[in-house]
Amino acid sequence: MARADLARQTCTIARAVSLVGDEWTFMILREMFLGGRRFDDFQRQTGASAALLSQRLKKLEAEGVIRKEAYSERPVRFEYRMTAMGRELWPAVITLKQWGDKWLGDGPAPVEIVHKSCGHVTEPQMTCSECGEPMAAHDAEPRLSEPFDTERQAMRKNS
Amino acid sequence: MARADLARQTCTIARAVSLVGDEWTFMILREMFLGGRRFDDFQRQTGASAALLSQRLKKLEAEGVIRKEAYSERPVRFEYRMTAMGRELWPAVITLKQWGDKWLGDGPAPVEIVHKSCGHVTEPQMTCSECGEPMAAHDAEPRLSEPFDTERQAMRKNS
Repeated sequence: MARADLARQTCTIARAVSLVGDEWTFMILREMFLGGRRFDDFQRQTGASAALLSQRLKKLEAEGVIRKEAYSERPVRFEYRMTAMGRELWPAVITLKQWGDKWLGDGPAPVEIVHKSCGHVTEPQMTCSECGEPMAAHDAEPRLSEPFDTERQAMRKNS
Repeated sequence: MARADLARQTCTIARAVSLVGDEWTFMILREMFLGGRRFDDFQRQTGASAALLSQRLKKLEAEGVIRKEAYSERPVRFEYRMTAMGRELWPAVITLKQWGDKWLGDGPAPVEIVHKSCGHVTEPQMTCSECGEPMAAHDAEPRLSEPFDTERQAMRKNS
């Protein structure tokens, strides 16, 4: 199955990873959440080649995650901004950062997050929208929709 | 810069994505959070080739994200279980799911999450560990550590 096929699966995780489940894409997102907007910044700070970056940026733009905006007329120069869709990837990037800090770090975290409204350094956490308690894997029970369940049963038999 | 170099960066997001920032790895994680444990299940449900799956599973095992356990002696057969390190990737997978549900879905979500302790269908959300309020990208201000800031300044000049 190719990446393009993941984008057509019923599973929305499959669709999401077919769009952003790529190391260089995550590095671009990191850079944009740190305030980076220009191709040169992305290249310098991520170490990705121009060709890799260009391909990822084009895809993110085509899918509506980022947009290109001229910041100079002569010569015409562009920068990249996140759309609302892109900004909502923040939790995905932060949860990976926190996981990396805990399991792969070798000292103080390279980036702390300050919560602007309360002013404290924060460790954002996943909490239940209904009762407000923190949630981890063992607190969650997945409940499959009928179409997804049917699709999965078919896949089980098809092999 | 190759993937291996990302693993050595100061940035813990870079380290995390060098380990799990890959679409098939996310599909394996999805499958394991849905209860899958066996190679055959992964192959049937994700559509990945045996070679791709095998390479990803080996890497996840070597890095401590999953472990292999014999479930049958004759013939010897193995299944894969998540370690504590692996289970803590749950927020990263759930946030991608939620993003996919909202931005890439075309109907009801394929999977609902039930919070076992309160019994409700939940939309886990990122909240501030200090004040408890929900947090999104615009609520967060990144504060760079001195070593990371120095590294980034050097990268800015080096090009």
